[in-house]
Amino acid sequence: MQDLPFDIASLHAAYESGTKPGDVVAECYRRIAASGDPGIFITLIDAEKAHAEAARLGPFDRVAKPLWGVPFAIKDNIDAVDEQTTAGCPAFAYEAAADAFTVAKLRAAGAILIGKTNLDQFATGLVGVRSPYPIPKNALDPEIVPGGSSSGSAVAVARGLVSFALGTDTAGSGRVPAALNNIVGLKPTVGALSASGLVPACRTVDTISVFALTVEDAYRAFQSAAGHDPADAFSKAVTTPDLGTAPPHPTIGVPDTASLEFFGDAVQAASYAAALDTLRSEGGEIVEFDFTPFYRVAEMLYGGVWVAERHAVVGPLMDTAPEAVHPVIRRIVGAATKFSATDTFNSLYRMEALRRTCEAAMAGIDLLCVPTIPTFFTVADLEADPIGPNTKLGTYTNFVNLLGLCGIAVPTGTRSDGRPASVTLLARAGQDSLTAALASRLHRKARVTLGATGWALPEIPEPAPTLGPDEIVVAAVGAHMSGLPLNGELIRLGGRFIATASSAPGYRLYRLTGGPPFRPGLMRDATGGAIDLELWALPLASFGAFMAGIPAPLGIGTVTLADGGTVNGFICESAGLEGATDITEFGGWRAYLAAATDRQGAVP
Amino acid sequence: MQDLPFDIASLHAAYESGTKPGDVVAECYRRIAASGDPGIFITLIDAEKAHAEAARLGPFDRVAKPLWGVPFAIKDNIDAVDEQTTAGCPAFAYEAAADAFTVAKLRAAGAILIGKTNLDQFATGLVGVRSPYPIPKNALDPEIVPGGSSSGSAVAVARGLVSFALGTDTAGSGRVPAALNNIVGLKPTVGALSASGLVPACRTVDTISVFALTVEDAYRAFQSAAGHDPADAFSKAVTTPDLGTAPPHPTIGVPDTASLEFFGDAVQAASYAAALDTLRSEGGEIVEFDFTPFYRVAEMLYGGVWVAERHAVVGPLMDTAPEAVHPVIRRIVGAATKFSATDTFNSLYRMEALRRTCEAAMAGIDLLCVPTIPTFFTVADLEADPIGPNTKLGTYTNFVNLLGLCGIAVPTGTRSDGRPASVTLLARAGQDSLTAALASRLHRKARVTLGATGWALPEIPEPAPTLGPDEIVVAAVGAHMSGLPLNGELIRLGGRFIATASSAPGYRLYRLTGGPPFRPGLMRDATGGAIDLELWALPLASFGAFMAGIPAPLGIGTVTLADGGTVNGFICESAGLEGATDITEFGGWRAYLAAATDRQGAVP
Repeated sequence: MQDLPFDIASLHAAYESGTKPGDVVAECYRRIAASGDPGIFITLIDAEKAHAEAARLGPFDRVAKPLWGVPFAIKDNIDAVDEQTTAGCPAFAYEAAADAFTVAKLRAAGAILIGKTNLDQFATGLVGVRSPYPIPKNALDPEIVPGGSSSGSAVAVARGLVSFALGTDTAGSGRVPAALNNIVGLKPTVGALSASGLVPACRTVDTISVFALTVEDAYRAFQSAAGHDPADAFSKAVTTPDLGTAPPHPTIGVPDTASLEFFGDAVQAASYAAALDTLRSEGGEIVEFDFTPFYRVAEMLYGGVWVAERHAVVGPLMDTAPEAVHPVIRRIVGAATKFSATDTFNSLYRMEALRRTCEAAMAGIDLLCVPTIPTFFTVADLEADPIGPNTKLGTYTNFVNLLGLCGIAVPTGTRSDGRPASVTLLARAGQDSLTAALASRLHRKARVTLGATGWALPEIPEPAPTLGPDEIVVAAVGAHMSGLPLNGELIRLGGRFIATASSAPGYRLYRLTGGPPFRPGLMRDATGGAIDLELWALPLASFGAFMAGIPAPLGIGTVTLADGGTVNGFICESAGLEGATDITEFGGWRAYLAAATDRQGAVP
Repeated sequence: MQDLPFDIASLHAAYESGTKPGDVVAECYRRIAASGDPGIFITLIDAEKAHAEAARLGPFDRVAKPLWGVPFAIKDNIDAVDEQTTAGCPAFAYEAAADAFTVAKLRAAGAILIGKTNLDQFATGLVGVRSPYPIPKNALDPEIVPGGSSSGSAVAVARGLVSFALGTDTAGSGRVPAALNNIVGLKPTVGALSASGLVPACRTVDTISVFALTVEDAYRAFQSAAGHDPADAFSKAVTTPDLGTAPPHPTIGVPDTASLEFFGDAVQAASYAAALDTLRSEGGEIVEFDFTPFYRVAEMLYGGVWVAERHAVVGPLMDTAPEAVHPVIRRIVGAATKFSATDTFNSLYRMEALRRTCEAAMAGIDLLCVPTIPTFFTVADLEADPIGPNTKLGTYTNFVNLLGLCGIAVPTGTRSDGRPASVTLLARAGQDSLTAALASRLHRKARVTLGATGWALPEIPEPAPTLGPDEIVVAAVGAHMSGLPLNGELIRLGGRFIATASSAPGYRLYRLTGGPPFRPGLMRDATGGAIDLELWALPLASFGAFMAGIPAPLGIGTVTLADGGTVNGFICESAGLEGATDITEFGGWRAYLAAATDRQGAVP
């Protein structure tokens, strides 16, 4: 039991082999006691309570309860019924009358709450050293900051004390500590996880986040915790399809050389470059662009009016008992009082303009890949300057929630100096499954052990192509296939790559006139052959918009696959074939493009 | 020419009969000179310029240029190239380097700009008397305020000086003056009309609006001016389908008796009740509900932090030359300085919560119908109290833009005391064509003359059912038909009623088991008959979401109409007919419901 890895795959395998959840609960408490770090948890759930929860689980059932018997922790700005919520500030503490919405959902999915973790007070910081409680130690190197603000949650996971932990993320608190502790940090689309029962940091920008040892675990906890909550005015209905396969050829935007910033850390630069090489070797197309507008957004989070959202929470306490608030937090949050309502609206206008600029910069890009952190800082660095290093740590995280992006920080290996390597994949709101699918591929390529545990990444079968209840399959045969010019349309409409496949025999493929984009047309013809295609799952709600974007002579009809099944797919009116070239012999558009490029250096 | 009505139908008929646009332009200037009211326009366009524009129009072509030769005015907070923009404040004035986005679009559609109109300074007011220029006189009764802030635009239209005029609307400035001058005031979905070239009032809440003599004219100008503008960060892509027929049985929400407010004006109460009777007699279902949350929203616009948006515009001038700002405006806008950034975020939170409450109150409701104004105020009333009556005038308008609703103020006849009657129809963002279609029906029923002109409402053929480029037709045969329980799903997805129709013979209709909602199933069967149905246009982008909401055994297939055409429509799997009753003999679901209700007092 002492060697049992706490990733969910290993845990569920143990349960299937007869391990009892009570044994796992007991092991959690044993590991916590043995950890020698009193800074990780602010509150441990009474062990009897946790055992009672384990006893109530009933027989093992991973379908009804995807988190059956999975121990977890939550950051201490999130409510658990009958427990104190401190937000890292004893004078602020209150006893929660109910579980937070997300905690209730996780418990309903079978997860067992073990404790509430330390944090940068009021979730204000990226370092983890701004707490009146003992400072949790970085799981890999006690000289390095643990990262914050979700310090305890990240360290608890990295040390294998629990399987996953909830953090929160406003400026990067769900990602930076993941990078510093060699674990996964999933920062959902803002609004996907209800904030009911959360002490806000910046209420319009916050999200609850998930730390876990693997991408699959983080995503499963995210799925279980998600759901629209009418009681939270900022809650959004976000679809959370099962984690699938990443698209084979995503277009990945990265900061260009001039706008990359590592504060002199050449090792981090090399580690980031290596991660991009991996993405390239896995089929990704890396596109460099000027990241300056994203930095302008980032600067507005702490340098601008949004700090007043923190003041709306902490201000009343600062007015009555200023000494109850951590001096660094007091200094940061106190800056809010210099901003007026007029300043606020002017900032909202500027933010809206920057949002449009950033959206334009992301046109044609499926995901972004950035370093999670630009470099590392020690506890001593923060003692010397409590704010400067913190600001630098947020270089690649501060802008994300203001722009409504979702993201996931994922380990990419070990740097040449032994420190953990990490990148963050970012995508548009609602694309959490896209970032997670690609992160999973990266993590697997990294062949790194999990957190500080030494455990290997568990072998998990490639996810079977599953279709959500409100999705349909579309077969792409041309420019909508992964990596080709119109693929982004599919991805931006929430399309998920399912598999490559082949049509039944009896189709002809034509290269149509016109373009760019150059497009083929598929026609049923008994004398034809089998044509390569890609299957994509598209939300039913997007299907009309997708159809609306398809020009004649193309249309969506029914395509028969090699296995005899039928799916919706691109077909071509025969009237549109004038001047078209029959390219059936190539067996598919991609093969035709490759041959044409080889012959002529360009698409004919 | 002196008797030529300036509504677009009459004007275009005149052009077809040989009238020249130069003659119309000359008539504009003659009418303006004869108006005897120096308060309407702040700037008249040089007549030579207007004549030159008319000369450049080319041959009459109402298809390429839907506003060919139509004279219009704009509120003087909107830019016209090479003209002064004053926003009602000479010290603020600047010469515009370019047309506002909307003005350029209107000119491109063939409209001819005649002048720039007076307003409550910085568009702050609903009364029209807060201007350093001469106060425009109400077109119907000079003792009554003209209404504001778009005072000059409304009076110019009501007196027939121009065909339509742009106003702006933050708190009701595009609706209140319409009610006070017996004309139509179309307040679009916020973001549908670009704000490029507009002096903002509250930038997050503002919209440019349209005053016209008829609903059709207002909507046509709105359509021509609409379009996404990348240069305006708050611009939205809003679809503007051609104006069609209103749904036969809309569900119309109205304030209940306890939450109706007329400030003692029993005549206005009676006039509003009469308008609701008209809506009922036209097939509408009136649903009363508690309007209190909408009033809470309304109070936040002037009583809360949003006044800081005005301060962001006017503040710099108030700091350097306070006396340059109208004393009432100075008092109102000066209140912004008492609000902090923290207050602002707290207000944004409260607003978001109220938005959810109001959305919940509107569940199941297609439109709202409110009085445009609760009562009338005289110029003398405003001299005695410059703020109180203004606040009261905004009772039914202040909440609208904060909640993202679109609306249209429309004359509904003449009150028993001779004053103009008006209601405002409101609907969700993007439903501008729905409110306009119903407003057109109400206006026709009102049989009132136009503005202060004495002109009759022109006879216009019922709009032909036209389908936008990104719409498809769906045939509803059951609970999705107008007035039935699921019709709201169609309307909320942007569905537009096209026509009632009938299937080809050869269909059977079954009353399915289950419900509520009670539903029929349509099956092709050569022994059956023709079944009544309704044709609805649905945005292609919504089609998938609509399909996703349809449970088995129903589905969307192809239905053949009586005229032999085919449309998408509800069909039923034969496997779902177990226990169903054949009701083909009734000829349709509505007839069946009526018969069933007659027999049993309830749907069987």
